[in-house]
Amino acid sequence: MSAAPFVPANPEFESVVRESFSRQTMMATLRADIARLMPGEVDLRLPWSPAFCQQNGYMHAGAIASVADSANGYAAYTLAAPDTDVLAVEFKINLLAPARGTEFLACGRVLRPGRTLTVCLAEVFAVGGARRIPIATMLSTIIVRPKAR
Amino acid sequence: MSAAPFVPANPEFESVVRESFSRQTMMATLRADIARLMPGEVDLRLPWSPAFCQQNGYMHAGAIASVADSANGYAAYTLAAPDTDVLAVEFKINLLAPARGTEFLACGRVLRPGRTLTVCLAEVFAVGGARRIPIATMLSTIIVRPKAR
Amino acid sequence: MSAAPFVPANPEFESVVRESFSRQTMMATLRADIARLMPGEVDLRLPWSPAFCQQNGYMHAGAIASVADSANGYAAYTLAAPDTDVLAVEFKINLLAPARGTEFLACGRVLRPGRTLTVCLAEVFAVGGARRIPIATMLSTIIVRPKAR
Amino acid sequence: MSAAPFVPANPEFESVVRESFSRQTMMATLRADIARLMPGEVDLRLPWSPAFCQQNGYMHAGAIASVADSANGYAAYTLAAPDTDVLAVEFKINLLAPARGTEFLACGRVLRPGRTLTVCLAEVFAVGGARRIPIATMLSTIIVRPKAR
Repeated sequence: MSAAPFVPANPEFESVVRESFSRQTMMATLRADIARLMPGEVDLRLPWSPAFCQQNGYMHAGAIASVADSANGYAAYTLAAPDTDVLAVEFKINLLAPARGTEFLACGRVLRPGRTLTVCLAEVFAVGGARRIPIATMLSTIIVRPKAR
Repeated sequence: MSAAPFVPANPEFESVVRESFSRQTMMATLRADIARLMPGEVDLRLPWSPAFCQQNGYMHAGAIASVADSANGYAAYTLAAPDTDVLAVEFKINLLAPARGTEFLACGRVLRPGRTLTVCLAEVFAVGGARRIPIATMLSTIIVRPKAR
Repeated sequence: MSAAPFVPANPEFESVVRESFSRQTMMATLRADIARLMPGEVDLRLPWSPAFCQQNGYMHAGAIASVADSANGYAAYTLAAPDTDVLAVEFKINLLAPARGTEFLACGRVLRPGRTLTVCLAEVFAVGGARRIPIATMLSTIIVRPKAR
Repeated sequence: MSAAPFVPANPEFESVVRESFSRQTMMATLRADIARLMPGEVDLRLPWSPAFCQQNGYMHAGAIASVADSANGYAAYTLAAPDTDVLAVEFKINLLAPARGTEFLACGRVLRPGRTLTVCLAEVFAVGGARRIPIATMLSTIIVRPKAR
């Protein structure tokens, strides 16, 4: 994946993304936060928590999918025009390894920006010290729409 | 989708599924419970909650994906041999409509059972009175493995 | 999947779909034809051919995906407004069994029609006499756009 | 995507992959050939052809999916043990742009190799002179199995 140098259509993209993220109660409940925010790129940090596990004590695939989905959605949103909103149309996630670890990082990247549809790819890592173990990959389609008033 | 008449490989499938479900803290946190459990079929009920929303107050796609993933995983698990465990390999979800409503139902069905891989399809509905509005469809691949000791 | 009773937006939908299908040289090369065409539903028939196999003599996943993609695309097109065209945004296919047999049937169905995006599900069967063996399931997102002039 | 330095489990991987590829009649019919073959990486070249188009004269999504599927399958096969075969379990493709051009390149890469399941990502480009325009991205799950005798 070569990183294309994206030019944001909205100079206020950072505050717009952060404001929208702050309204996602799912992210607050998961205690996820924004680790990085650049045109076309959003990384979200997720701490391990006993409250979001599957049957063996690893993070539930749905928790991992939640942060990957938001990382991709907000990566798309960094490039959206003013007064628009983004919505996931669909996503597909491959779970590469059990989500074991103390912290996870979901790195969403725009593959192809579009006026209507934007395609993003997220990689999710279990992070420990200097090591990053890939645990999931998500390919998403996001729709950009005029904001509902 | 014609419902194939599945014969469970484990006569104890119901208690095995319920016991595993009870260990998924993600489901407890979401306050999801089992509405229906049959060979090859699991329905999970999810109440709306202000704690799991996206930026516009609808349930986050990740919350919907969580219950659809568990519904498909446990539908597969109803047909698994004794002393095995199930794990999602991957899933793809189409979000058909915003997840607005007071209650949601994720209906997981086995499309093709397999010794190693089982394919399931889940439909998620917003439920209100007698109405069911489809809000998402998930296609999942689940691996069945000998239980780790 | 309950079959919703769809009302076509274009009374000429059948001739419009057949005319577009006749321009898909891929379908002609595969010798695929339309077995059924109804509002929201298109079935395509594909004969086995030695020219489209994978390494073991079964039909290549790409040949199966080709007819499933066209079945879903044309199922969406039956419901589209006049002077529009359809384009697959993305699809995901699960290959349930090797594509062995003399004839295959790809049955595309609209799950949710939309002004911009339509979601379809296709089931592909190996057909022999009265038997239908499911070999693949495809979930697709299709965009409907004004026709380019 | 960082390219992990993969060590092939079969020293004969190149001849094994080329021999299997030569048995895929679908690839011969499409006139696709192997442009690059390394441990964990396979690039397939596909010329434009009037025989594999959709209704507007672009290559059919199924033709593009065929070469992306084979690129990912053979990327996985480069890392497989001797006397095994590979089979696509499922794949998901996003079509980023119409497949217009004189030549296409499908670059399959292993994201995570596994004893049973391998996950691959393919990027497909329209190639013209020094330019490469991304037209599709495919995420695939491939199963490695003992060869049937």
